[in-house]
Amino acid sequence: MTTEPAEPAGAGALLAILRDGRSRTRSELVQLTGLARSTVTQRLDALVEHRWIRPADDAIFSGGRPAAAFSFDPGARTVLAADLGATHARIAAMDLTARVLAERGLDLPIADGPEHVLGRLVDEFTALLAGTGRTLTEVCGVGVGLPGPVEHASGRPVNPPIMPGWDGFDVPGRLAHRLGAPVLVDNDVNIMALGEHRAAGPEVEHLLFVKVGTGIGCGIITEHRLHRGAQGSAGDIGHIQVAGAATEPCRCGNTGCLEAVAGGGALAARLRASGLDVEDGRDVVGLVRAGDPAAIQLIRQAGRDIGQILAALVNFFNPGVIAVGGDLAEAGEHLLAGVREEIYSRSLPLATQHLSIRGGALGDRAGVIGAAVMVVEDVLSPAAVDRAIRAAEGPEPTPA
Amino acid sequence: MTTEPAEPAGAGALLAILRDGRSRTRSELVQLTGLARSTVTQRLDALVEHRWIRPADDAIFSGGRPAAAFSFDPGARTVLAADLGATHARIAAMDLTARVLAERGLDLPIADGPEHVLGRLVDEFTALLAGTGRTLTEVCGVGVGLPGPVEHASGRPVNPPIMPGWDGFDVPGRLAHRLGAPVLVDNDVNIMALGEHRAAGPEVEHLLFVKVGTGIGCGIITEHRLHRGAQGSAGDIGHIQVAGAATEPCRCGNTGCLEAVAGGGALAARLRASGLDVEDGRDVVGLVRAGDPAAIQLIRQAGRDIGQILAALVNFFNPGVIAVGGDLAEAGEHLLAGVREEIYSRSLPLATQHLSIRGGALGDRAGVIGAAVMVVEDVLSPAAVDRAIRAAEGPEPTPA
Repeated sequence: MTTEPAEPAGAGALLAILRDGRSRTRSELVQLTGLARSTVTQRLDALVEHRWIRPADDAIFSGGRPAAAFSFDPGARTVLAADLGATHARIAAMDLTARVLAERGLDLPIADGPEHVLGRLVDEFTALLAGTGRTLTEVCGVGVGLPGPVEHASGRPVNPPIMPGWDGFDVPGRLAHRLGAPVLVDNDVNIMALGEHRAAGPEVEHLLFVKVGTGIGCGIITEHRLHRGAQGSAGDIGHIQVAGAATEPCRCGNTGCLEAVAGGGALAARLRASGLDVEDGRDVVGLVRAGDPAAIQLIRQAGRDIGQILAALVNFFNPGVIAVGGDLAEAGEHLLAGVREEIYSRSLPLATQHLSIRGGALGDRAGVIGAAVMVVEDVLSPAAVDRAIRAAEGPEPTPA
Repeated sequence: MTTEPAEPAGAGALLAILRDGRSRTRSELVQLTGLARSTVTQRLDALVEHRWIRPADDAIFSGGRPAAAFSFDPGARTVLAADLGATHARIAAMDLTARVLAERGLDLPIADGPEHVLGRLVDEFTALLAGTGRTLTEVCGVGVGLPGPVEHASGRPVNPPIMPGWDGFDVPGRLAHRLGAPVLVDNDVNIMALGEHRAAGPEVEHLLFVKVGTGIGCGIITEHRLHRGAQGSAGDIGHIQVAGAATEPCRCGNTGCLEAVAGGGALAARLRASGLDVEDGRDVVGLVRAGDPAAIQLIRQAGRDIGQILAALVNFFNPGVIAVGGDLAEAGEHLLAGVREEIYSRSLPLATQHLSIRGGALGDRAGVIGAAVMVVEDVLSPAAVDRAIRAAEGPEPTPA
């Protein structure tokens, strides 16, 4: 893959102008870009041929005859998205605005290994597409979230603790081969953050999405983009030390980690030790919903422990929104109350003044929607559009 | 001020291409941008007229006669920068690559108030410029760092604790009126982070700059840009709670804040209580340099306390570089050793694998260099260049 940047006013830059949904005439685009009319015509032709845009129905009358206008066509291409969890997956087919055309949940244990899981995913995607009347040739990209660390550039899992057989597996290669479209992979918390950021609206520039399940992780949005960090490990807050919890052993080898104190597994273990029949975080949430006082107290304290860490991160990062999701967030206000309690008592007034601390808006759809956003932003980036058009045109003739 | 975006291939976009320092002919620029030749000529004329570029000395021969080439002219404009501290300031005149042409230190107590301090600054800038043989008409922007919180958009200090009389003062307005150039203001930690990021080199995408003085603050660089956060308060790590220090009272009203435990004032107070004649953090550093065991022990522990907070931030943010500066950093390896000790024992292996933890590379010049970087990135941004050229051309004639 070439890493050539987009031309300052290539076809991709024209598409970026049209992505706001308004239709524009050739003359308007000539004026907006300063490009020669012949250049604009040539680039519009390429974009139409690649089905990113179409002649708009609303021809624009300026004086005598109607001028042809063009607009972005979000429905001409399809994006496939999958959010794989430990035992369950959600898949969806969407258009280029991440609007869901069809979706479904699957029982699909990640521990069955990549061959089986990805094979099943291809079959399910194919069936889902068929139901929408669309075909694989219309698919412009596939986004996948995995429940473990992923090297984003290669799409390969890196030492994922709950994914036996997946370490280093070429997930994009396998799926692209069968689906015939580019495949992007990231960890589930990052794609959920992208989904919740989309739901929060364009005025939210800096957002933290905190997933509280068996593990605890954070997706970081800064200036509307995902912050992955120098090694791609940003957001791994589950192993930050909680003050006053120094003796709690963690699977990472350290003690007092947030996950070992406030993760779903830790809470379940504590209730089990007191004689209750509890297997995991979901059972804890069940008890909370049934009004069990010990479970309520426990989840409130988990909220405080998470809030203690987030209070520091609020001072450091100054987000506009903190959205809390994941299995334990299903316990609702009990968890959030603990989180808020700590943040408001410990963070700086300036940083909490307009801070919104809330549950996720998308629930278990955050992952597939975020995976589609990841794909769309990549596929429609000016550099990618220019590259796709150049590739279709074939190599330039060598000058004589 | 208008917030119109840059044209996709306006004069600003041409300048962005030329900023790499290579000279290019008209034909090369036509080919690179897809713009009409007449448009390129018109834009190059405007850039030459505004002195951003100049005809290059190295005319390029392609076939018969030489083709005129153009290149970025970093020396044609001057940037003024000031880094104001509690009692002392540093000022500099630089070119458009933030190369220092002249600089000097001043005794200038910030508590003398904005009228006096800014008046003095104008006089000192004028004298400094005169020494370089340049004039105010060549100045394209002024960057100022202040030792307190600043609302970056307006350049006004916001409740600055050690700056009596400065709250809400229109710093840019006052300076721009006397210096005749746009003025950008930020807090000192942010501009030092910009300076240290410039010094760290273009391959460092994510950097934390930690200033350890009387207060403790952090400048955050993500994807080569300053992260200011939703309310502009990002990086205020001095009031994050240190585990095990819950009773130490802080000036903010909370207890156990990092600043109250490991700031220069806190260390000085502790040595004073043991009978030593110590006024502030600089005296503590003096004792450390003189080999005083109590002072060395104290500064090592301060490093551990700072490291405890940074260990959490390394997991969360995954920076490539942490640079530690400020008065206490002058104590050298004793402080850094404590910082490293905590980070390597508490942060995730993946996040520390390639992490560089080091002293600042620029010492007390980080601020002025960063202030110049802030100005240059703003003044040379494509949108700003287009705006400046439009403004000089005057209003467009209204169509008949």
